[in-house]
Amino acid sequence: MKFNIAVLPGDGIGPEITQQSVKVLKAVADRFDHEFNFEEAEVGAIAIDLLGDPLPEATLELCKKSDAVLFGAIGDPKYDNDPSAKVRPEQGLLKLRKELGLFANIRPVRAYESLIHQSPLKAENIEGADMVIFRELTGGIYFGEKSTSEDGKSASDLCSYSVEEIERVAHLAFKAAEERRKKLTLVDKANVLETSRLWRKTVTEIGKEYPDVKLDFLFVDNAAMQMILNPKQFDVILTENMFGDIISDEASVIGGSIGLLESASVGTKNALFEPIHGSYPQATGQGIANPLASVLSAAMMLDHLGLKKEAETVRMAVDLSIKLNVCTIDINKDNHYSTERVGDFLESVI
Amino acid sequence: MKFNIAVLPGDGIGPEITQQSVKVLKAVADRFDHEFNFEEAEVGAIAIDLLGDPLPEATLELCKKSDAVLFGAIGDPKYDNDPSAKVRPEQGLLKLRKELGLFANIRPVRAYESLIHQSPLKAENIEGADMVIFRELTGGIYFGEKSTSEDGKSASDLCSYSVEEIERVAHLAFKAAEERRKKLTLVDKANVLETSRLWRKTVTEIGKEYPDVKLDFLFVDNAAMQMILNPKQFDVILTENMFGDIISDEASVIGGSIGLLESASVGTKNALFEPIHGSYPQATGQGIANPLASVLSAAMMLDHLGLKKEAETVRMAVDLSIKLNVCTIDINKDNHYSTERVGDFLESVI
Ligand SMILES: CC(C)[C@H](C(=O)O)[C@@H](O)C(=O)O
Ligand SMILES: CC(C)[C@H](C(=O)O)[C@@H](O)C(=O)O
Repeated sequence: MKFNIAVLPGDGIGPEITQQSVKVLKAVADRFDHEFNFEEAEVGAIAIDLLGDPLPEATLELCKKSDAVLFGAIGDPKYDNDPSAKVRPEQGLLKLRKELGLFANIRPVRAYESLIHQSPLKAENIEGADMVIFRELTGGIYFGEKSTSEDGKSASDLCSYSVEEIERVAHLAFKAAEERRKKLTLVDKANVLETSRLWRKTVTEIGKEYPDVKLDFLFVDNAAMQMILNPKQFDVILTENMFGDIISDEASVIGGSIGLLESASVGTKNALFEPIHGSYPQATGQGIANPLASVLSAAMMLDHLGLKKEAETVRMAVDLSIKLNVCTIDINKDNHYSTERVGDFLESVI
Repeated sequence: MKFNIAVLPGDGIGPEITQQSVKVLKAVADRFDHEFNFEEAEVGAIAIDLLGDPLPEATLELCKKSDAVLFGAIGDPKYDNDPSAKVRPEQGLLKLRKELGLFANIRPVRAYESLIHQSPLKAENIEGADMVIFRELTGGIYFGEKSTSEDGKSASDLCSYSVEEIERVAHLAFKAAEERRKKLTLVDKANVLETSRLWRKTVTEIGKEYPDVKLDFLFVDNAAMQMILNPKQFDVILTENMFGDIISDEASVIGGSIGLLESASVGTKNALFEPIHGSYPQATGQGIANPLASVLSAAMMLDHLGLKKEAETVRMAVDLSIKLNVCTIDINKDNHYSTERVGDFLESVI
């Protein structure tokens, strides 16, 4: 089969990790006799530097007509510490999510048997933990009106949600729960926020269409605690944009490294695949970044393209690299491999 | 010395734990020859049930004229699962914070030597962790305009902050950092939120007045991860209302139990002291709730009233109860004591 894949390496460690995924995808194409056409484009700080725009029109067009987008990372400290910067790398990613209508960000989290000792959490707390977080991705406070008063003395961000925005991601989450352990936890702050109450009401309604799925609710503060106290209680978590951002980064500690967590961002037409870690600027160019989160994101992409067997093959290669400890320094402290050598290993076993 | 203390037991386990603190405070008054006048008032779900108002006027008046408020907990599941309830227990607490101008919520977090094995985190990760979280408490999305469209199909919450709101809590946090390890971490989401950029800008400005304090910044998603990966890196954390709510509940896992975490909410005139755990409705009336968070909140109250030696005495009593394992079931699984017996023990050693 033939697919067009847009590759957006972005900033920081984005290029080096994405390169390994492309290598792995090429090996998959070879072995399974597919044709993947990769086309690269700029996004983020690098796009600002080169073209003055964190999401150049050409990049957006490429993504729109591609079958899937492989995304690296964006972000650069020179913007973080300049609160008055008008153009920021993150705007590129946010606009891309919005323009492609990628309303659901899907983040699986599991404890790898052989990495359990790496986690800051005790083994007995995380052994067997296995959840998927569904984060709403194109609404909420990320996209609401922002303003700063003329005198610069006050600022605001609006968080808003419509029933429709909640419904579409909720359906995906319920469907996933049906295929899994049939439990869905809505994380919100319904005791304080009006939007959370709309979430609770809407999700309760939709839950009636999925009678097999047990629905429960957690306030986000409690959820942040429960994620560490007892992560095994979670099967599918559904939550709004900002809470999902926080809770899923937190959940990365269960896997032993944030360098292992993949994600898929899906909409009705397009789909984008990215590691949940960021651009990790301190590590750029050092060959120490873990490519597995990106490679696992590529596996999600294969699934999305209907190539289940191919996706499974990539996941098995990743499992093998972890078992044999052919891993970067974040999970192999004593005898670590470089980003590229991990990629080479994966390529060699596909 | 003579002090008027307003006691607001509230809902769920609030009354049983608060009762132990009052017992302890009475023992302190006896031993150090003070006069504490305790006056009780209703707040939360119980106040709605009795008087139709989560913060009756008489309660507010009592708090305003008192030297300090000892607060239990509020919240009742019957409101949580009714998204259309007009009156909610939480409104009582939020209004109280606002009316008393309690703009800073101070939450110390530390790993108790003898409880380290209780934590879901590995000992080496938390041994020696010791931080204070300064959470802004009367601004942000908690207090911004809330609305639901007429057709009920959309809802919004506004997050807004002024420079002044940021400054006053920032000064308290910097002053605390000066007295501690001289590091202050601002937790925000400045790569996305306009309010966070105002925080970053304002706090950077104020930082210049505290040249001894090293200021750094963390995005809230990263902070939620760092809190577990390496909690020892934190000294003073400063953050806005919602992020503070999430991060501090998460941080409770370091202490081994949320039943150990005290807090002080201070303003220019008034001050309120409450455990960070909630009303824990499942445990109500069973005598299993941990009173230590409330008792430690009472110790913070004594500090606030200038009674340093007295506060120290209470903390030593708490340390002793933990060392001797005279503790409730959350931290003493095998041979636990009831809420009341823990209180009696504390009373007996003061
Ligand atoms: C880079 C940033 C805007 C982004 C987000 O907050 O959504 C990132 O943290 C993520 O989680 O994908
Ligand atoms: C009960 C609730 C409104 C409250 C809050 O979110 O502020 C609580 O979680 C807390 O942290 O004190």
